[in-house]
Amino acid sequence: MVGRWRRGILTTGIDQRAIAIYAPIQSRLNRVEERLRNLDDEAIPDLHTLLDYVLSSGGKRVRPAITLLASDFYAHDDEKPIIMSAAIELLHLATLVHDDTVDNSDLRRGKATVSHQWGKHIAVLFGDYVFAASATFVCDTENVRVIRRFSKTIMELASGEIIEYFNCYNPQQAREMYQDRIYRKTASLFRTAAETGAILGNAPELQVQALTDYGYNMGMAFQMVDDLLDVQGDPSELGKPVGNDLLQGVLTLPSIMLLERYPDNNPIEALFRERSHDGLLQQALDMINNSSIISDCYTEIHGYCAKAAQALEILPDCDARRSLRNMTDYIWERTR
Amino acid sequence: MVGRWRRGILTTGIDQRAIAIYAPIQSRLNRVEERLRNLDDEAIPDLHTLLDYVLSSGGKRVRPAITLLASDFYAHDDEKPIIMSAAIELLHLATLVHDDTVDNSDLRRGKATVSHQWGKHIAVLFGDYVFAASATFVCDTENVRVIRRFSKTIMELASGEIIEYFNCYNPQQAREMYQDRIYRKTASLFRTAAETGAILGNAPELQVQALTDYGYNMGMAFQMVDDLLDVQGDPSELGKPVGNDLLQGVLTLPSIMLLERYPDNNPIEALFRERSHDGLLQQALDMINNSSIISDCYTEIHGYCAKAAQALEILPDCDARRSLRNMTDYIWERTR
Repeated sequence: MVGRWRRGILTTGIDQRAIAIYAPIQSRLNRVEERLRNLDDEAIPDLHTLLDYVLSSGGKRVRPAITLLASDFYAHDDEKPIIMSAAIELLHLATLVHDDTVDNSDLRRGKATVSHQWGKHIAVLFGDYVFAASATFVCDTENVRVIRRFSKTIMELASGEIIEYFNCYNPQQAREMYQDRIYRKTASLFRTAAETGAILGNAPELQVQALTDYGYNMGMAFQMVDDLLDVQGDPSELGKPVGNDLLQGVLTLPSIMLLERYPDNNPIEALFRERSHDGLLQQALDMINNSSIISDCYTEIHGYCAKAAQALEILPDCDARRSLRNMTDYIWERTR
Repeated sequence: MVGRWRRGILTTGIDQRAIAIYAPIQSRLNRVEERLRNLDDEAIPDLHTLLDYVLSSGGKRVRPAITLLASDFYAHDDEKPIIMSAAIELLHLATLVHDDTVDNSDLRRGKATVSHQWGKHIAVLFGDYVFAASATFVCDTENVRVIRRFSKTIMELASGEIIEYFNCYNPQQAREMYQDRIYRKTASLFRTAAETGAILGNAPELQVQALTDYGYNMGMAFQMVDDLLDVQGDPSELGKPVGNDLLQGVLTLPSIMLLERYPDNNPIEALFRERSHDGLLQQALDMINNSSIISDCYTEIHGYCAKAAQALEILPDCDARRSLRNMTDYIWERTR
């Protein structure tokens, strides 16, 4: 493999497999890109600069690709899935801008964040603007079911972040809380990307449900891969220190598993209590990496990827289905 | 008058006139309030506290009242205007939470802001959540025209704030720029409050247009009154220092008029250039208050109120129309 996915993006070279996955929709993905770049308001002189800045930050448009692929099974209006796909990416970008602002992150994908470059003031307002733009795009689909699903997702995204914040440095979190949190933070948008694509592509209801399941499972796997890379990754590839989640007081699956296995005298409890990581962080990371936790996480992730692949089986066999199927392997391979 | 409107709220006692204005819709306004207070997500333990905090901060629900009144002219679904009215208030509250966050404001209506009380992190995320909740409420109207208008307004609100920010300390702003800015910041939401109420109340198209005009003109007058009070008000009633806009580098109608009259050697130019207000702010305020600028502003505001009142004339005579008409006088009287 020439390039590798790291945290959802292709970081090196051109990956033949990614090209193959995107092939059925590449020309439409270019039209999505055009729409994103033409979002403008001449009364706001720097809007174009800000938009261009976040659009050129290296995202691989995984979510909008899922929308387009999910819309591709039946004869359909060509334009609405494109608008929807652009809305999905705008919503994703808006959450990144706000997340970086509240997390005081200076870098994203190796580039200064909007908040670091222009200040928090602009980052909050620009994020609001991009949120609003995404909602306006969704309205252009004129499909109330799609609009409702989209606005539900905005609530789930915001509530996921709030729940994460209120549970910071809380070592008492069951797996169910983690699953609920990553559904809201990540899987909700993947699910909506697939579901709205299916609806706008006129898929029959059972297939809409199947694509909804696909998106949900892909999103769960995607976030779990991210969380796993955080405890085992190479900091130069992650763009942030290993163990960053634990440092920020955020429990993820590997650290929850560690707490389950060593309920007494666990380094994570001490780390969260003392908020000083002299040795404690490294100790926790070592315990995770030198146990079966990593492979147990693999098993969980693999389970979600398998469910995503299985959901596709009732769909007609075609290029779009093959691409969606290949994406499930791709997410999985990020951990290898 | 027992109570007085200051910056859009009744600050003292119970105003008989306000009671009369709200009379035709008081029971429905209570249902709006119930809906606002029942917005909950049990996974977020502190959400209820936060919501209750912002809902109890003394707003007089002017915008949702306009929605209900505008919906009141024809036989209509009773529920949808109530949902819409709640959405309008939620959007307003979300913008207040974000505005206070980016402006570093500690107080609003004499109470600590969410950002001051819980920190900027929570304020940004809670604002996002309330934005999203407002969009979800609008979806429940199942009216695409209404949903589209609402999302357009979110964009206008966000862009208004961005434009204000990018023009901070810029003394070269024509009246047209000011009008565009206050339309986005304030009048857009008033307009949408009235327009969506009219649409959901099944008003004929010409009357929808009339109520849209009404809302637009009311919003413009409302913001101009705010801006006028800022240069002439009593700081104890304003809850912030007189001349706060100029201190923040924001030009409003009175200061634009002062710049028009004294293009050379104007204290505002020096104030914006040096960003120190030793005497310069007071000099500018004195020049504004000792000239015909105040009465010229009155004339402008009165013009908008008169247009709002005039727009109502094609509507059937009824309690709702009388209440909307009385509101135009009420806004106007805030300056007296």
